Amino acid sequence: MKNNKLVIVGTMAFDEIITPSAESGKILGGAATYIGLAAAFADADIAAVSVVGEDFTEEQLNLLTERGIDISGVEQVRGGKSFYWKGRYHDNMNKRDTLDTQLNVLADFNPVVPEAYRDASVVMLGNLDPNVQQKVLDQLLPNPNRTVLLDTMNFWMDLQWDTLLNVIKQVDIITINDEEAMQLSGETNLVLAAKAIHKMGPAYVIIKKGEHGALLFYNDQPFFAPALPLEKVEDPTGAGDSFAGGLSGYLAAQQKVDAKAIKEGILRGTAAASLCVGAMGTSNLVQASSEDFLAQLQKLERLRNITA
Amino acid sequence: MKNNKLVIVGTMAFDEIITPSAESGKILGGAATYIGLAAAFADADIAAVSVVGEDFTEEQLNLLTERGIDISGVEQVRGGKSFYWKGRYHDNMNKRDTLDTQLNVLADFNPVVPEAYRDASVVMLGNLDPNVQQKVLDQLLPNPNRTVLLDTMNFWMDLQWDTLLNVIKQVDIITINDEEAMQLSGETNLVLAAKAIHKMGPAYVIIKKGEHGALLFYNDQPFFAPALPLEKVEDPTGAGDSFAGGLSGYLAAQQKVDAKAIKEGILRGTAAASLCVGAMGTSNLVQASSEDFLAQLQKLERLRNITA
Repeated sequence: MKNNKLVIVGTMAFDEIITPSAESGKILGGAATYIGLAAAFADADIAAVSVVGEDFTEEQLNLLTERGIDISGVEQVRGGKSFYWKGRYHDNMNKRDTLDTQLNVLADFNPVVPEAYRDASVVMLGNLDPNVQQKVLDQLLPNPNRTVLLDTMNFWMDLQWDTLLNVIKQVDIITINDEEAMQLSGETNLVLAAKAIHKMGPAYVIIKKGEHGALLFYNDQPFFAPALPLEKVEDPTGAGDSFAGGLSGYLAAQQKVDAKAIKEGILRGTAAASLCVGAMGTSNLVQASSEDFLAQLQKLERLRNITA
Repeated sequence: MKNNKLVIVGTMAFDEIITPSAESGKILGGAATYIGLAAAFADADIAAVSVVGEDFTEEQLNLLTERGIDISGVEQVRGGKSFYWKGRYHDNMNKRDTLDTQLNVLADFNPVVPEAYRDASVVMLGNLDPNVQQKVLDQLLPNPNRTVLLDTMNFWMDLQWDTLLNVIKQVDIITINDEEAMQLSGETNLVLAAKAIHKMGPAYVIIKKGEHGALLFYNDQPFFAPALPLEKVEDPTGAGDSFAGGLSGYLAAQQKVDAKAIKEGILRGTAAASLCVGAMGTSNLVQASSEDFLAQLQKLERLRNITA
C-alpha cells in the first residue's frame, strides 16, 4: 500500500532579517515552514506539526495549504504570539548575530501528530527542542520501513545534551553543519566526526558545508554533493531547513530509502537550498514552480557532469 | 605526429616545514618538483625548467629523472645555493606563516627551455616571477594546438601586477586559489571573480578551494570537483602544485584539450593533491606507484557517484 506520508515537526515563526543590502521587516519563517515548502516539490503527502499564535494570518497558513501541506497538526494558540527571531548577517553572509528571540507560544509547545499521519514512512525532526522531537517520536505507530531524519544545532548541544543524544539514537539520518558536527563529536576532522556520530546512532551522517556543499557518510563511503555557485546570496536564512525539506520530501515520495535514494535526495535538498537563498525569507520557495525546481536540479547535474 | 611534450617551469628548492605534529628538517621542495612528480603519473614527455645550487644533490635530481623527467633545462649554479623556504602551519593546517625565504640562485634565474621541448603541446607555468614565466613563453616555437597553464599567487599580484597581467593574457587555463581569485579580480564572489578573470585572457578559470575542492568555469558553465575527505592532512605544502601537475600531465598525455579533458585532468590533479598532503613534503609523490594514483582516482569516482 502506498505510504508517501511525511511528518515534519519544527517552528513556524516570524523572522526579521537584516542583510548588508536589505531589511525584511516581519516575514514568515521557521524551520517547519521552510522544510514543508521545500518538501512540497516532491510527490509526498505532507503534514506539518507546529504551533503559532493568534498573530499568524490565514494568508500565511494558506501558503502551506496551497502547496498541499496538511496543517491540522499546527496548533494556533488563542491570544498567543508566534515565535519571533531577529538577526543580522555579516558582510560575507557566512555569519550572523541574533538580535532578538521571543519564544512566545513555543515555550509551552506540546506537539500532536494528526492521527492519519502516525504511520508516516518518513519523519523529519526539524531543528527545535529535542524534548519536542522526542514527543513526536513517542506518538508514532510502529512502521518497520520508517525513516527518521533529524536536524539540530549547537544551541541544543549546550542546553539539552542528554535529551538530544537520546533522540539521535533513534534517528536514521542526521543533517548537521560542519561546526556543529565537530561540537557534537568532539573531533576537529569531518571524517572522524562522522565516524563518531555514526556510533551515536544514525547510519547516515550528512554534514552541510553551506556554499561548499554537503558530505554524506555511510558505511565508510563518503559521497559529496556540491552547492550551486551563485552570483548573489540574498538571504541564507532557511537554507539548511530547505535542504532537509528537499531531502525528506524526496525520500517520502520514493517510498524506498537506500544510499542511492539518499544521494538523490541530497541533490534535491541542495536544489531547494539554492532556490531559497536567492531571495529574502521563503519568497523564492513560495513562488517557485516545479519547473523552477527542476531547472535548479539540472544545473546541479551539469555542475557534476564530466561530459556536459 | 605524437606530441605529448609538457614543459614545466617553476622553483626547485629546499623547504623546512613545521606542522603541529612534525618538523621536516631540510627537504626537497619547489613548485617544479611537485608539478613534475605529479605530472609523471601520466603518459607525458616531461621537461622541467628550473635552477638549483651546488647544494642540490644528485640523489635529489634523480628523484625526477627516475620518473622520466628531463632535467636538461635545470641549471645547476656552481658555488650557488638553492632557493630556501621555511614555514610553519597553524593548528588547523589552513594557514601558514613564512619564517624564512632565501632566493639565492633564483634571484638571477634565466630560464632556458631545451631545444627538443620548444614545440611542446602543453606548457605549465608554475608559481614564480611572471618575468620568468614570460621568458619561457618567448622561447617557444609556434604550435597552434598548444595549451598554456599558469599558477600564481598573491605575492606576484602585489609586486609584479603589470607583468603578471600580461602573462595571464597569453594563458588558456589559470589555476588560482579562492582568495587569490578575489584579489586578482577585485570581486568577493567566486562566480563574478571567474567572469572577471575570463576577460583577462584565460578561457578556463580553475579556482582551488583546498579541502573544499575545485571549481572550473568555462563558457558560463561551472564544473565542480570535490577533494577527497581525509582523516589526516600531514602537510599541505605542494598541494596546489600537485594539482597543477596532475592536470597538465593528463592534458599532455591526451594530446587533445577540451572541456571534458580539462575536467578529467582536474580529477587527476585532485588525486595527486590528496596523495601529496598525506605525508611530509614530496615523499608520498615520490613513493606512490601508478596503482596508488589510480586508487585515489577511484576513491574520487566513488565520492562523486550516485549509484556506488
